[in-house]
Amino acid sequence: MSLLAVGTVAIDSIETPYGKVERVVGGAATYIAWAASYFTDQIRIVSIIGEDFPEEELGLLKTRGVDTDGIHLVKGGKSFFWSGRYHNDMNSRDTLETQLNVLADFSPDLPSEYRKSKYLMLGNLTPSVQMTVLNQMEVRPDIIAMDTMNFWMDSAMDELLKVIKRVDILTINDEEARQLSGKQSLAKAARDILKMGPKYLIIKKGEHGALLFDNEQVFFAPALPLYDVFDPTGAGDTFAGGMMGYLSNKGELNFGNLKSAIIYGSAMASFCVEEFSINKIKSLSDRDIQKRLKMFIDLVQFDI
Amino acid sequence: MSLLAVGTVAIDSIETPYGKVERVVGGAATYIAWAASYFTDQIRIVSIIGEDFPEEELGLLKTRGVDTDGIHLVKGGKSFFWSGRYHNDMNSRDTLETQLNVLADFSPDLPSEYRKSKYLMLGNLTPSVQMTVLNQMEVRPDIIAMDTMNFWMDSAMDELLKVIKRVDILTINDEEARQLSGKQSLAKAARDILKMGPKYLIIKKGEHGALLFDNEQVFFAPALPLYDVFDPTGAGDTFAGGMMGYLSNKGELNFGNLKSAIIYGSAMASFCVEEFSINKIKSLSDRDIQKRLKMFIDLVQFDI
Repeated sequence: MSLLAVGTVAIDSIETPYGKVERVVGGAATYIAWAASYFTDQIRIVSIIGEDFPEEELGLLKTRGVDTDGIHLVKGGKSFFWSGRYHNDMNSRDTLETQLNVLADFSPDLPSEYRKSKYLMLGNLTPSVQMTVLNQMEVRPDIIAMDTMNFWMDSAMDELLKVIKRVDILTINDEEARQLSGKQSLAKAARDILKMGPKYLIIKKGEHGALLFDNEQVFFAPALPLYDVFDPTGAGDTFAGGMMGYLSNKGELNFGNLKSAIIYGSAMASFCVEEFSINKIKSLSDRDIQKRLKMFIDLVQFDI
Repeated sequence: MSLLAVGTVAIDSIETPYGKVERVVGGAATYIAWAASYFTDQIRIVSIIGEDFPEEELGLLKTRGVDTDGIHLVKGGKSFFWSGRYHNDMNSRDTLETQLNVLADFSPDLPSEYRKSKYLMLGNLTPSVQMTVLNQMEVRPDIIAMDTMNFWMDSAMDELLKVIKRVDILTINDEEARQLSGKQSLAKAARDILKMGPKYLIIKKGEHGALLFDNEQVFFAPALPLYDVFDPTGAGDTFAGGMMGYLSNKGELNFGNLKSAIIYGSAMASFCVEEFSINKIKSLSDRDIQKRLKMFIDLVQFDI
């Protein structure tokens, strides 16, 4: 079952039309691990933090059964910090400040048992770091998923393409799919990106849902129309965490399981945006999740 | 089952990244009638044209069983003309020219048998013309749907709200829903717009599908990810035509029937955009439509 999540564990300051929070917990691996923890166990995080990262937050992850031994604490260092302000439409945001801090020297050295993890989620990071992790795996994981972003397409495309070639599932947003493929039509973009290596491509469209492609089929997962989107930070990572948590539990990677996994991911992401930081996804019950999944079923069910 | 479609019957010149056509058949009522003709009979059009409108096109509608006696031909007049150019992303367009021509004096006087139509689709038109039609109905139709656009929200809001109050189904796009309600969240926009009178609100999101709301439920119909969107002109009207054609055949208006109707509408719209003008929706077989509907089922079907 052993799911390895690689990504940032960070501190964020976030401003949205609903309010403002200072120095709260963030980071791709944090969101991934929390979301996955509802569906699978033996979750391991590989990341790097400074002394300013709140110890009790690591404790909370441990009580969820998440192994945090792979989170390297740099004495005297400061954690990766991001601050941003969302616009009124919540679909765009301004980055106010990015401090790489300890992340600048992140060169993961995986604990030996981590190197045999059966499932691997590479959160958005420098492609060379993602590659380092891939190279340290002793056995090829059963499922490798990766997230990335336009920044790496602009600055490290060659290295990025090498990582993409080695994964099973790639998750990017619609604009990134267009940039990576040079195609406006998402159907064409998917066809071209699947030729780059991954078996499955997931195109995330935020409030418009997500598309899953393989070479033969396409599936659409809707987003729940919410009254209030409080804070979109981490929604994509929460989506990936819910998806990989579900897949790690199922074990087998096929189109049918991936469809369900994406609905689980979408449900977790719909919780994530309802409060700041990881506040909402820290405190869900199984009943909350089941009710939310039912809403997704009702949302798209029809008879013809 | 007598479906009355009110709207423009027009001539368009259209330029898209795929090509350019001059003076082809267009108009909301044209698309509505063609799309509906696959699902119901006794379709009637109320509109106005000039002598430049190609007679053979009216003939084709007649062979589909569409009653065109309510299309008023103005001797010596010219038909409503629109020309536009779509941008590369196909989501935005520039209007190059609009000639109201005979539409400027359109004041419909419904043939007596039209006034008892059981189903009514008010295509996008001046709200006062939509109101004139409503007032001429001798018996309140079983189902009244209307389409409108931001232009009337800017220029004739009071009159528009009076029409909206009297219909069962309102179809608008996402930006129009935000403008009409003043709410960014579509869930909140829907809640507020439903207070204005309609029982059902359909929010069209183009390539992102469509949302259906009543006061208690929400349904999402996806759009098919297409390789090529050739010409988006008339997609919204084709959607409405497919929907009202299906509903006219079913007879009863409820959330379940409307869900199916919207999938039919989405399927017809997916054909519409694959060729210029009404070219594709003029020549479909039942088998084409059944195959396309199956694609919509596959697109959102999952097991949990």
